Amino acid sequence: MFIYGKVPVEEALLQEPQHIEKIFIRKGIPTDTHHNIKELAQQNQIVISYVPEQKLVHLVGRVKNQGFVALRSSIRYYNFFQWLEGVELGSDVSIVILGGLEDPHNVGAVLRSAAASGISAVIVPSSGQAPINATVVKTSAGTAGAIPIIRSHSAEQALKDAALAGFEIFALHQNASEPLFDLSFTKPAAFFIGKEGSGIDPSLLKMCNRHIKIPMQNNVESLNASVSTALMCYEWQRKTGQ
Amino acid sequence: MFIYGKVPVEEALLQEPQHIEKIFIRKGIPTDTHHNIKELAQQNQIVISYVPEQKLVHLVGRVKNQGFVALRSSIRYYNFFQWLEGVELGSDVSIVILGGLEDPHNVGAVLRSAAASGISAVIVPSSGQAPINATVVKTSAGTAGAIPIIRSHSAEQALKDAALAGFEIFALHQNASEPLFDLSFTKPAAFFIGKEGSGIDPSLLKMCNRHIKIPMQNNVESLNASVSTALMCYEWQRKTGQ
Repeated sequence: MFIYGKVPVEEALLQEPQHIEKIFIRKGIPTDTHHNIKELAQQNQIVISYVPEQKLVHLVGRVKNQGFVALRSSIRYYNFFQWLEGVELGSDVSIVILGGLEDPHNVGAVLRSAAASGISAVIVPSSGQAPINATVVKTSAGTAGAIPIIRSHSAEQALKDAALAGFEIFALHQNASEPLFDLSFTKPAAFFIGKEGSGIDPSLLKMCNRHIKIPMQNNVESLNASVSTALMCYEWQRKTGQ
Repeated sequence: MFIYGKVPVEEALLQEPQHIEKIFIRKGIPTDTHHNIKELAQQNQIVISYVPEQKLVHLVGRVKNQGFVALRSSIRYYNFFQWLEGVELGSDVSIVILGGLEDPHNVGAVLRSAAASGISAVIVPSSGQAPINATVVKTSAGTAGAIPIIRSHSAEQALKDAALAGFEIFALHQNASEPLFDLSFTKPAAFFIGKEGSGIDPSLLKMCNRHIKIPMQNNVESLNASVSTALMCYEWQRKTGQ
Protein backbone atom coordinates (compact mmCIF):
# COMPACT_ATOMS: atom_id res chain seq x y z
CA MET A 1 0.00 0.00 0.00
CA PHE A 2 1.24 3.49 -0.87
CA ILE A 3 0.80 6.75 1.02
CA TYR A 4 1.38 10.00 -0.92
CA GLY A 5 1.63 13.72 -0.26
CA LYS A 6 4.07 15.42 2.09
CA VAL A 7 1.89 15.65 5.21
CA PRO A 8 0.44 12.11 4.94
CA VAL A 9 3.96 10.66 4.50
CA GLU A 10 5.26 12.65 7.48
CA GLU A 11 2.24 11.62 9.54
CA ALA A 12 2.79 7.93 8.65
CA LEU A 13 6.43 8.20 9.75
CA LEU A 14 5.31 9.66 13.06
CA GLN A 15 2.36 7.35 13.72
CA GLU A 16 3.51 3.97 12.44
CA PRO A 17 7.15 4.04 11.36
CA GLN A 18 7.34 0.28 12.08
CA HIS A 19 5.12 -0.33 9.04
CA ILE A 20 6.89 1.97 6.58
CA GLU A 21 9.07 -0.05 4.22
CA LYS A 22 10.56 2.71 2.07
CA ILE A 23 10.20 6.43 1.18
CA PHE A 24 10.35 7.74 -2.39
CA ILE A 25 11.08 11.45 -2.90
CA ARG A 26 11.11 13.30 -6.21
CA LYS A 27 14.64 14.14 -7.38
CA GLY A 28 15.48 17.83 -7.13
CA ILE A 29 13.18 18.63 -4.22
CA PRO A 30 15.21 20.99 -1.97
CA THR A 31 16.53 19.25 1.14
CA ASP A 32 15.36 22.01 3.50
CA THR A 33 11.72 21.24 2.63
CA HIS A 34 11.79 17.82 4.25
CA HIS A 35 14.28 17.79 7.13
CA ASN A 36 11.67 16.20 9.35
CA ILE A 37 10.96 13.33 6.94
CA LYS A 38 14.68 12.63 6.52
CA GLU A 39 15.21 12.59 10.26
CA LEU A 40 12.26 10.32 10.99
CA ALA A 41 13.32 7.92 8.23
CA GLN A 42 16.86 7.76 9.57
CA GLN A 43 15.71 7.20 13.15
CA ASN A 44 13.66 4.24 11.99
CA GLN A 45 16.19 2.73 9.58
CA ILE A 46 13.93 3.46 6.62
CA VAL A 47 15.60 3.87 3.25
CA ILE A 48 14.87 7.06 1.23
CA SER A 49 15.10 6.71 -2.53
CA TYR A 50 15.32 9.87 -4.72
CA VAL A 51 13.55 9.13 -8.00
CA PRO A 52 12.21 10.92 -11.10
CA GLU A 53 8.55 12.00 -11.19
CA GLN A 54 7.77 9.11 -13.63
CA LYS A 55 8.67 6.60 -10.93
CA LEU A 56 6.23 8.25 -8.48
CA VAL A 57 3.50 8.21 -11.14
CA HIS A 58 4.28 4.56 -11.81
CA LEU A 59 3.82 3.81 -8.10
CA VAL A 60 0.67 5.79 -7.26
CA GLY A 61 -0.80 6.95 -10.60
CA ARG A 62 -1.54 10.56 -11.58
CA VAL A 63 -2.37 11.99 -8.16
CA LYS A 64 -1.07 15.03 -6.26
CA ASN A 65 1.92 13.29 -4.73
CA GLN A 66 3.76 16.58 -3.97
CA GLY A 67 6.97 14.63 -4.52
CA PHE A 68 6.51 12.28 -1.53
CA VAL A 69 5.43 8.62 -1.53
CA ALA A 70 5.75 6.02 1.25
CA LEU A 71 5.47 2.26 0.82
CA ARG A 72 3.54 0.77 3.74
CA SER A 73 4.17 -2.88 4.59
CA SER A 74 1.85 -5.38 6.26
CA ILE A 75 4.90 -6.49 8.25
CA ARG A 76 5.56 -4.66 11.48
CA TYR A 77 9.26 -3.88 11.86
CA TYR A 78 10.92 -3.73 15.25
CA ASN A 79 13.85 -1.68 16.48
CA PHE A 80 16.58 -3.87 17.98
CA PHE A 81 16.97 -2.13 21.32
CA GLN A 82 13.23 -1.59 21.75
CA TRP A 83 12.71 -5.30 21.06
CA LEU A 84 15.44 -6.18 23.59
CA GLU A 85 13.58 -4.32 26.35
CA GLY A 86 10.86 -6.96 26.25
CA VAL A 87 13.26 -9.91 26.26
CA GLU A 88 14.96 -11.63 29.17
CA LEU A 89 18.38 -12.32 27.70
CA GLY A 90 19.71 -15.82 28.27
CA SER A 91 20.96 -18.81 26.30
CA ASP A 92 17.36 -19.47 25.29
CA VAL A 93 17.34 -16.32 23.14
CA SER A 94 18.65 -16.38 19.58
CA ILE A 95 18.48 -14.22 16.49
CA VAL A 96 19.26 -14.62 12.81
CA ILE A 97 21.02 -11.69 11.12
CA LEU A 98 20.67 -11.55 7.33
CA GLY A 99 23.83 -10.28 5.68
CA GLY A 100 23.06 -9.85 1.99
CA LEU A 101 20.72 -12.57 0.71
CA GLU A 102 19.69 -11.60 -2.82
CA ASP A 103 17.06 -14.20 -3.66
CA PRO A 104 13.67 -13.42 -2.06
CA HIS A 105 12.88 -17.17 -2.12
CA ASN A 106 15.83 -17.74 0.18
CA VAL A 107 14.75 -14.90 2.48
CA GLY A 108 11.25 -16.40 2.69
CA ALA A 109 12.57 -19.90 3.40
CA VAL A 110 14.91 -18.50 6.08
CA LEU A 111 12.03 -16.70 7.84
CA ARG A 112 10.00 -19.93 7.71
CA SER A 113 12.81 -22.04 9.19
CA ALA A 114 13.61 -19.41 11.82
CA ALA A 115 9.97 -19.28 12.94
CA ALA A 116 9.66 -23.09 12.94
CA SER A 117 12.81 -23.64 14.95
CA GLY A 118 11.83 -21.12 17.62
CA ILE A 119 14.40 -18.43 16.84
CA SER A 120 13.49 -15.26 18.78
CA ALA A 121 13.79 -12.68 15.97
CA VAL A 122 15.34 -11.98 12.56
CA ILE A 123 17.34 -8.82 11.78
CA VAL A 124 16.94 -7.55 8.20
CA PRO A 125 19.34 -4.74 7.20
CA SER A 126 17.74 -1.94 5.13
CA SER A 127 20.69 -1.84 2.75
CA GLY A 128 22.50 -4.59 0.84
CA GLN A 129 19.79 -7.14 1.51
CA ALA A 130 16.65 -8.23 -0.38
CA PRO A 131 13.69 -6.50 1.34
CA ILE A 132 10.67 -8.34 2.74
CA ASN A 133 8.57 -8.09 -0.44
CA ALA A 134 5.53 -10.05 -1.66
CA THR A 135 7.69 -12.95 -2.93
CA VAL A 136 9.35 -13.26 0.47
CA VAL A 137 6.00 -13.31 2.25
CA LYS A 138 4.67 -15.92 -0.19
CA THR A 139 7.76 -18.18 0.10
CA SER A 140 7.63 -17.86 3.88
CA ALA A 141 4.22 -19.60 3.64
CA GLY A 142 2.60 -17.01 5.87
CA THR A 143 5.24 -17.24 8.58
CA ALA A 144 6.90 -13.90 7.76
CA GLY A 145 5.07 -12.22 10.64
CA ALA A 146 5.26 -15.16 13.07
CA ILE A 147 8.40 -13.86 14.77
CA PRO A 148 9.62 -10.26 15.16
CA ILE A 149 11.48 -8.80 12.18
CA ILE A 150 14.00 -6.20 13.29
CA ARG A 151 15.26 -3.50 10.95
CA SER A 152 18.84 -2.32 10.99
CA HIS A 153 20.76 0.21 8.84
CA SER A 154 23.26 -2.35 7.65
CA ALA A 155 24.64 -5.80 8.44
CA GLU A 156 27.60 -4.09 10.13
CA GLN A 157 25.27 -2.10 12.40
CA ALA A 158 23.31 -5.26 13.23
CA LEU A 159 26.49 -7.12 14.22
CA LYS A 160 27.67 -4.18 16.37
CA ASP A 161 24.30 -3.95 18.12
CA ALA A 162 24.17 -7.71 18.74
CA ALA A 163 27.71 -7.72 20.18
CA LEU A 164 26.89 -4.73 22.39
CA ALA A 165 23.82 -6.53 23.73
CA GLY A 166 25.92 -9.57 24.65
CA PHE A 167 25.08 -11.97 21.84
CA GLU A 168 27.66 -14.52 20.76
CA ILE A 169 27.87 -14.24 16.98
CA PHE A 170 28.12 -17.38 14.87
CA ALA A 171 29.25 -17.20 11.24
CA LEU A 172 28.81 -20.12 8.92
CA HIS A 173 31.47 -20.58 6.25
CA GLN A 174 33.46 -23.38 4.76
CA ASN A 175 36.90 -22.22 5.89
CA ALA A 176 35.74 -22.47 9.48
CA SER A 177 37.08 -25.05 11.90
CA GLU A 178 34.26 -25.72 14.34
CA PRO A 179 31.78 -28.38 13.16
CA LEU A 180 28.14 -27.35 13.53
CA PHE A 181 27.12 -30.53 15.31
CA ASP A 182 29.65 -30.04 18.14
CA LEU A 183 28.29 -26.63 19.19
CA SER A 184 27.00 -25.78 22.62
CA PHE A 185 25.25 -22.56 23.55
CA THR A 186 25.86 -20.73 26.80
CA LYS A 187 24.96 -17.16 25.76
CA PRO A 188 22.31 -15.51 23.61
CA ALA A 189 23.17 -16.62 20.06
CA ALA A 190 23.20 -14.60 16.84
CA PHE A 191 23.52 -16.49 13.54
CA PHE A 192 24.94 -14.41 10.73
CA ILE A 193 23.99 -15.45 7.18
CA GLY A 194 26.13 -14.26 4.26
CA LYS A 195 25.39 -13.73 0.57
CA GLU A 196 24.34 -16.72 -1.55
CA GLY A 197 27.40 -16.77 -3.75
CA SER A 198 30.24 -14.94 -2.08
CA GLY A 199 29.39 -15.66 1.56
CA ILE A 200 30.40 -13.30 4.34
CA ASP A 201 32.52 -10.21 3.64
CA PRO A 202 35.93 -10.50 5.41
CA SER A 203 35.41 -7.21 7.31
CA LEU A 204 32.14 -8.56 8.74
CA LEU A 205 33.62 -12.00 9.39
CA LYS A 206 36.04 -10.37 11.84
CA MET A 207 33.08 -9.19 13.91
CA CYS A 208 31.91 -12.78 14.47
CA ASN A 209 32.98 -14.76 17.56
CA ARG A 210 32.55 -18.32 16.34
CA HIS A 211 33.30 -19.78 12.93
CA ILE A 212 31.19 -22.78 12.07
CA LYS A 213 31.22 -25.26 9.23
CA ILE A 214 28.76 -27.90 8.14
CA PRO A 215 30.43 -31.24 7.40
CA MET A 216 30.17 -32.00 3.68
CA GLN A 217 31.01 -34.96 1.51
CA ASN A 218 31.37 -35.65 -2.22
CA ASN A 219 33.35 -32.42 -2.71
CA VAL A 220 30.20 -30.33 -2.22
CA GLU A 221 31.42 -26.84 -1.33
CA SER A 222 28.30 -25.22 0.01
CA LEU A 223 24.61 -25.73 0.65
CA ASN A 224 21.67 -23.59 -0.36
CA ALA A 225 21.58 -20.58 2.01
CA SER A 226 18.17 -21.43 3.41
CA VAL A 227 19.23 -25.03 3.98
CA SER A 228 22.37 -24.15 5.93
CA THR A 229 20.45 -21.56 7.98
CA ALA A 230 17.84 -24.18 8.86
CA LEU A 231 20.54 -26.66 9.94
CA MET A 232 22.03 -23.98 12.19
CA CYS A 233 18.68 -22.89 13.68
CA TYR A 234 17.64 -26.47 14.39
CA GLU A 235 21.03 -27.22 15.94
CA TRP A 236 20.32 -24.42 18.36
CA GLN A 237 16.79 -25.70 19.03
CA ARG A 238 18.11 -29.17 19.71
CA LYS A 239 20.88 -28.03 22.05
CA THR A 240 18.87 -25.48 24.01
CA GLY A 241 15.69 -27.55 24.14
CA GLN A 242 13.56 -24.69 22.84
CA MET B 1 21.47 -32.87 -26.71
CA PHE B 2 19.03 -34.44 -29.14
CA ILE B 3 19.42 -37.59 -31.25
CA TYR B 4 17.05 -38.01 -34.21
CA GLY B 5 16.12 -40.64 -36.77
CA LYS B 6 14.81 -44.14 -36.01
CA VAL B 7 18.09 -46.08 -36.17
CA PRO B 8 20.15 -43.50 -34.18
CA VAL B 9 17.47 -43.40 -31.45
CA GLU B 10 17.33 -47.20 -31.29
CA GLU B 11 21.13 -47.35 -31.21
CA ALA B 12 21.29 -44.81 -28.38
CA LEU B 13 18.78 -46.86 -26.37
CA LEU B 14 20.95 -49.93 -26.86
CA GLN B 15 24.35 -48.32 -26.29
CA GLU B 16 23.74 -45.80 -23.52
CA PRO B 17 20.20 -46.04 -22.17
CA GLN B 18 21.46 -44.60 -18.85
CA HIS B 19 21.94 -41.23 -20.58
CA ILE B 20 18.59 -41.09 -22.41
CA GLU B 21 16.21 -38.77 -20.61
CA LYS B 22 13.13 -39.03 -22.81
CA ILE B 23 11.91 -40.28 -26.22
CA PHE B 24 9.62 -38.23 -28.50
CA ILE B 25 7.73 -40.09 -31.22
CA ARG B 26 5.50 -38.50 -33.88
CA LYS B 27 1.79 -39.08 -33.20
CA GLY B 28 0.18 -41.57 -35.60
CA ILE B 29 3.30 -43.62 -36.30
CA PRO B 30 2.10 -47.27 -36.31
CA THR B 31 3.10 -49.13 -33.15
CA ASP B 32 4.44 -52.16 -35.05
CA THR B 33 7.19 -49.99 -36.58
CA HIS B 34 8.92 -49.40 -33.24
CA HIS B 35 8.34 -52.37 -30.94
CA ASN B 36 12.02 -52.47 -30.19
CA ILE B 37 12.25 -48.81 -29.15
CA LYS B 38 9.19 -49.18 -26.91
CA GLU B 39 10.62 -52.24 -25.24
CA LEU B 40 14.06 -50.71 -24.67
CA ALA B 41 12.48 -47.54 -23.26
CA GLN B 42 10.32 -49.53 -20.87
CA GLN B 43 13.22 -51.69 -19.70
CA ASN B 44 15.15 -48.54 -18.84
CA GLN B 45 12.30 -46.55 -17.24
CA ILE B 46 12.45 -43.99 -20.05
CA VAL B 47 9.25 -42.07 -20.77
CA ILE B 48 7.94 -42.02 -24.38
CA SER B 49 5.96 -38.97 -25.35
CA TYR B 50 3.79 -39.02 -28.54
CA VAL B 51 3.79 -35.55 -30.04
CA PRO B 52 2.81 -33.68 -33.24
CA GLU B 53 5.45 -33.16 -35.95
CA GLN B 54 5.69 -29.44 -34.96
CA LYS B 55 7.04 -30.43 -31.56
CA LEU B 56 9.78 -32.56 -33.17
CA VAL B 57 10.70 -29.64 -35.47
CA HIS B 58 10.75 -27.36 -32.46
CA LEU B 59 13.20 -29.72 -30.75
CA VAL B 60 15.64 -30.53 -33.56
CA GLY B 61 14.83 -28.13 -36.41
CA ARG B 62 13.92 -29.13 -39.99
CA VAL B 63 15.90 -32.36 -40.28
CA LYS B 64 14.92 -35.88 -41.34
CA ASN B 65 13.75 -36.99 -37.91
CA GLN B 66 11.69 -39.93 -39.31
CA GLY B 67 9.35 -39.37 -36.37
CA PHE B 68 11.89 -40.28 -33.67
CA VAL B 69 13.82 -37.97 -31.33
CA ALA B 70 15.70 -38.82 -28.13
CA LEU B 71 16.79 -36.34 -25.46
CA ARG B 72 20.25 -37.24 -24.19
CA SER B 73 21.21 -36.11 -20.70
CA SER B 74 24.65 -35.35 -19.30
CA ILE B 75 23.49 -37.17 -16.16
CA ARG B 76 24.04 -40.91 -16.07
CA TYR B 77 20.99 -42.68 -14.71
CA TYR B 78 21.29 -45.90 -12.74
CA ASN B 79 18.93 -48.84 -12.43
CA PHE B 80 18.09 -49.59 -8.80
CA PHE B 81 18.96 -53.28 -8.74
CA GLN B 82 22.08 -52.84 -10.87
CA TRP B 83 23.20 -50.08 -8.49
CA LEU B 84 22.50 -52.36 -5.51
CA GLU B 85 24.87 -55.03 -6.88
CA GLY B 86 27.80 -52.71 -6.24
CA VAL B 87 26.71 -51.79 -2.70
CA GLU B 88 27.26 -53.61 0.56
CA LEU B 89 23.94 -53.06 2.31
CA GLY B 90 24.17 -51.95 5.92
CA SER B 91 23.00 -49.13 8.16
CA ASP B 92 25.62 -46.92 6.49
CA VAL B 93 23.65 -46.98 3.23
CA SER B 94 20.81 -44.54 2.64
CA ILE B 95 18.76 -43.26 -0.27
CA VAL B 96 16.38 -40.38 -0.90
CA ILE B 97 13.26 -41.17 -2.95
CA LEU B 98 11.61 -38.19 -4.61
CA GLY B 99 7.83 -38.50 -4.62
CA GLY B 100 6.48 -35.64 -6.69
CA LEU B 101 8.51 -32.46 -6.21
CA GLU B 102 7.30 -29.93 -8.77
CA ASP B 103 9.78 -27.09 -8.38
CA PRO B 104 13.13 -27.78 -10.10
CA HIS B 105 14.81 -25.43 -7.58
CA ASN B 106 13.72 -27.78 -4.81
CA VAL B 107 14.94 -30.83 -6.74
CA GLY B 108 18.34 -29.16 -7.25
CA ALA B 109 18.62 -28.18 -3.59
CA VAL B 110 17.66 -31.72 -2.52
CA LEU B 111 20.38 -33.25 -4.75
CA ARG B 112 22.90 -30.79 -3.28
CA SER B 113 21.96 -31.60 0.33
CA ALA B 114 21.87 -35.33 -0.36
CA ALA B 115 25.36 -35.23 -1.88
CA ALA B 116 26.72 -33.04 0.94
CA SER B 117 25.31 -35.24 3.69
CA GLY B 118 26.73 -38.42 2.20
CA ILE B 119 23.46 -40.02 1.10
CA SER B 120 24.28 -43.03 -1.13
CA ALA B 121 21.87 -42.35 -4.03
CA VAL B 122 18.69 -40.52 -5.04
CA ILE B 123 15.76 -42.21 -6.80
CA VAL B 124 13.93 -40.00 -9.30
CA PRO B 125 10.67 -41.46 -10.67
CA SER B 126 10.13 -40.93 -14.42
CA SER B 127 6.49 -39.96 -13.88
CA GLY B 128 4.84 -37.48 -11.51
CA GLN B 129 8.12 -35.81 -10.64
CA ALA B 130 10.04 -32.83 -12.06
CA PRO B 131 12.81 -34.30 -14.26
CA ILE B 132 16.51 -33.50 -13.87
CA ASN B 133 16.55 -30.53 -16.25
CA ALA B 134 18.97 -27.63 -16.71
CA THR B 135 17.42 -25.64 -13.82
CA VAL B 136 17.86 -28.62 -11.50
CA VAL B 137 21.51 -29.03 -12.49
CA LYS B 138 22.10 -25.29 -12.01
CA THR B 139 20.39 -25.16 -8.58
CA SER B 140 22.31 -28.25 -7.50
CA ALA B 141 25.46 -26.12 -7.96
CA GLY B 142 27.15 -28.84 -9.97
CA THR B 143 26.43 -31.58 -7.47
CA ALA B 144 23.70 -33.28 -9.54
CA GLY B 145 26.17 -35.91 -10.71
CA ALA B 146 28.09 -36.24 -7.44
CA ILE B 147 26.01 -39.19 -6.26
CA PRO B 148 24.18 -41.83 -8.32
CA ILE B 149 20.74 -40.86 -9.62
CA ILE B 150 18.50 -43.89 -9.98
CA ARG B 151 15.53 -43.89 -12.32
CA SER B 152 12.29 -45.62 -11.42
CA HIS B 153 8.90 -45.87 -13.23
CA SER B 154 7.02 -44.25 -10.39
CA ALA B 155 7.28 -43.38 -6.72
CA GLU B 156 5.23 -46.50 -5.94
CA GLN B 157 7.69 -48.69 -7.83
CA ALA B 158 10.63 -47.05 -6.05
CA LEU B 159 9.06 -47.72 -2.63
CA LYS B 160 8.33 -51.35 -3.56
CA ASP B 161 11.89 -51.88 -4.79
CA ALA B 162 13.39 -50.26 -1.69
CA ALA B 163 11.24 -52.39 0.63
CA LEU B 164 12.16 -55.53 -1.31
CA ALA B 165 15.85 -54.70 -0.95
CA GLY B 166 15.48 -54.36 2.82
CA PHE B 167 15.43 -50.58 3.24
CA GLU B 168 13.52 -49.09 6.16
CA ILE B 169 11.37 -46.34 4.65
CA PHE B 170 11.01 -43.03 6.48
CA ALA B 171 8.21 -40.63 5.57
CA LEU B 172 8.25 -37.06 6.77
CA HIS B 173 4.87 -35.49 7.51
CA GLN B 174 3.31 -33.35 10.18
CA ASN B 175 0.73 -35.87 11.39
CA ALA B 176 3.56 -38.21 12.32
CA SER B 177 4.42 -39.08 15.90
CA GLU B 178 8.16 -39.80 15.87
CA PRO B 179 10.35 -36.69 16.30
CA LEU B 180 13.21 -36.49 13.79
CA PHE B 181 15.85 -35.84 16.42
CA ASP B 182 15.05 -39.06 18.34
CA LEU B 183 15.70 -41.37 15.37
CA SER B 184 18.22 -44.15 15.32
CA PHE B 185 19.21 -46.13 12.25
CA THR B 186 19.80 -49.87 12.30
CA LYS B 187 19.00 -50.77 8.68
CA PRO B 188 19.61 -49.23 5.27
CA ALA B 189 17.45 -46.09 5.26
CA ALA B 190 15.20 -44.69 2.52
CA PHE B 191 13.85 -41.16 2.96
CA PHE B 192 10.67 -40.51 1.03
CA ILE B 193 9.96 -36.88 0.07
CA GLY B 194 6.40 -35.89 -0.87
CA LYS B 195 4.99 -33.07 -3.00
CA GLU B 196 5.63 -29.46 -1.97
CA GLY B 197 2.04 -28.58 -1.18
CA SER B 198 0.05 -31.74 -0.56
CA GLY B 199 2.78 -33.93 0.89
CA ILE B 200 2.68 -37.71 0.56
CA ASP B 201 -0.28 -39.47 -1.04
CA PRO B 202 -2.09 -41.67 1.55
CA SER B 203 -1.65 -44.83 -0.59
CA LEU B 204 2.11 -44.25 -0.65
CA LEU B 205 2.22 -43.28 3.02
CA LYS B 206 1.03 -46.81 3.86
CA MET B 207 4.13 -48.22 2.21
CA CYS B 208 6.40 -46.34 4.63
CA ASN B 209 7.65 -47.96 7.85
CA ARG B 210 8.42 -44.92 9.98
CA HIS B 211 6.51 -41.68 10.25
CA ILE B 212 8.67 -38.75 11.22
CA LYS B 213 7.91 -35.17 12.14
CA ILE B 214 10.14 -32.15 12.57
CA PRO B 215 9.38 -30.21 15.77
CA MET B 216 7.93 -26.81 14.87
CA GLN B 217 7.00 -23.72 16.81
CA ASN B 218 5.04 -20.52 16.17
CA ASN B 219 2.25 -22.50 14.45
CA VAL B 220 4.45 -23.13 11.42
CA GLU B 221 2.89 -26.09 9.63
CA SER B 222 5.65 -27.15 7.29
CA LEU B 223 9.11 -26.29 6.04
CA ASN B 224 10.39 -25.83 2.51
CA ALA B 225 10.77 -29.32 0.97
CA SER B 226 14.51 -28.96 0.43
CA VAL B 227 14.97 -27.72 4.01
CA SER B 228 13.13 -30.65 5.60
CA THR B 229 14.99 -33.11 3.36
CA ALA B 230 18.31 -31.61 4.43
CA LEU B 231 17.37 -31.86 8.11
CA MET B 232 16.52 -35.53 7.59
CA CYS B 233 19.68 -36.33 5.59
CA TYR B 234 21.93 -34.61 8.14
CA GLU B 235 20.16 -36.38 11.00
CA TRP B 236 21.15 -39.63 9.33
CA GLN B 237 24.73 -38.43 8.79
CA ARG B 238 24.98 -37.40 12.42
CA LYS B 239 23.61 -40.69 13.79
CA THR B 240 25.49 -43.05 11.50
CA GLY B 241 28.73 -41.09 11.54
CA GLN B 242 28.98 -41.04 7.74
